[in-house]
Amino acid sequence: MKVDICFTPALYPYYSQDGENKIVVVVDIFRATTTMCAALNNGARSIIPVASIEEAQDYKAKGFLVGAERNVKRCDFADFGNSPFDYTEDKVSGKDVVFTTTNGTQAIEMANDAEILIIGAFSNIDAVADFCFEKQKDVIVLCAGWNNRFNIEDSLYGGALARRLIDRGYTSASDATQVALSMWNEAKADVRKYINRTEHIKRLEANNLQDSVEYCLTEDTVNIVPVYNKQIKRLVIWNS
Amino acid sequence: MKVDICFTPALYPYYSQDGENKIVVVVDIFRATTTMCAALNNGARSIIPVASIEEAQDYKAKGFLVGAERNVKRCDFADFGNSPFDYTEDKVSGKDVVFTTTNGTQAIEMANDAEILIIGAFSNIDAVADFCFEKQKDVIVLCAGWNNRFNIEDSLYGGALARRLIDRGYTSASDATQVALSMWNEAKADVRKYINRTEHIKRLEANNLQDSVEYCLTEDTVNIVPVYNKQIKRLVIWNS
Repeated sequence: MKVDICFTPALYPYYSQDGENKIVVVVDIFRATTTMCAALNNGARSIIPVASIEEAQDYKAKGFLVGAERNVKRCDFADFGNSPFDYTEDKVSGKDVVFTTTNGTQAIEMANDAEILIIGAFSNIDAVADFCFEKQKDVIVLCAGWNNRFNIEDSLYGGALARRLIDRGYTSASDATQVALSMWNEAKADVRKYINRTEHIKRLEANNLQDSVEYCLTEDTVNIVPVYNKQIKRLVIWNS
Repeated sequence: MKVDICFTPALYPYYSQDGENKIVVVVDIFRATTTMCAALNNGARSIIPVASIEEAQDYKAKGFLVGAERNVKRCDFADFGNSPFDYTEDKVSGKDVVFTTTNGTQAIEMANDAEILIIGAFSNIDAVADFCFEKQKDVIVLCAGWNNRFNIEDSLYGGALARRLIDRGYTSASDATQVALSMWNEAKADVRKYINRTEHIKRLEANNLQDSVEYCLTEDTVNIVPVYNKQIKRLVIWNS
């Protein structure tokens, strides 16, 4: 089996063309996919990812709980922003939560016809690696990036996941995977320091939103794999 | 001034949007831009880059010298393939040469409305750095990639050029530049070894075309900067 890494959604057509029998792992470390994992781990029944603000507003009008973010800030009409700390058990347990963010939910939309689409974050990285290995399928890590530009944090996660999969017998599919592995090799001793160079850290700090950075970089705080159910168009926890 | 790196042509719209007053450096290390530099250095009067095989065939029918390559192989109808060693002084001196390749000439077409488009390779890297510094403009390195996928060799060149520009006072524009700088830092002591991991080396070796790899990775063998002249739609040597 092979593990490949697609650095931004705009490149996905060039990475998905070799066949459909793959697992796509969508990742947006700061903060959408980390937040989705937190919400489901705190008991949300499902997450309904939508790409546009308009769709989110329609759901809000129907009485749904809505998380909505653009350019790191919470949208005024929404119940939550894009911090994993917003989605506490008392607020989300048993609820369906609508969610739209600058990059993460667009990436899900780009890949929602994949045979298997799951959500990756550092918080569930071992659970994701277990899932992929158990399925015995090729893996594409789809980085959400930033407005279709390359970003470090999502690619770094790609390297960290590729490392785990290669240790279990996967092979690197591409130059992109090789570089992500090198990034992880350089970063792993002090991920927080490595991440300090990124554009997104500056964006979060400029908006006083750096409180969740440490959490977003911490491995294995939840033991779930969110999977996209195509029939109901929602993310739910995978049950083996 | 800032230096940014766009990893594949498909991402160029997301890197060129912040203003047009920039220098775009198109790079396709294996082998299109290395070959263009060699042809012009050997006395070719101009290179006429065309994106399609059909255009190249039309020029051939009109009596032009034509270099044409797809998937590393020379096209049957063409005078030359994509090796820098094909374009010797006795064959190209004083001639206009039509040129089409799998990735490099597509990248030129993608960016041909840039204010200044130049051609970069390891063979002219210092000349390119001098040119950019002299113009005092922001720089985007546009990597040709492989069928719009990320490749190591072009991104590595981006890191090598960024290193030279930053040493002269430029700043890194992005996460992409940061990662390319790390790649160069890891590779520079033994570039040939670093490049051995790439997809393209395997492709060249499978077609017995590895003879020019060493040349394509050697710095500063020519002292010219090919620049795209929009009026005549040709690449010519820049005269300061």
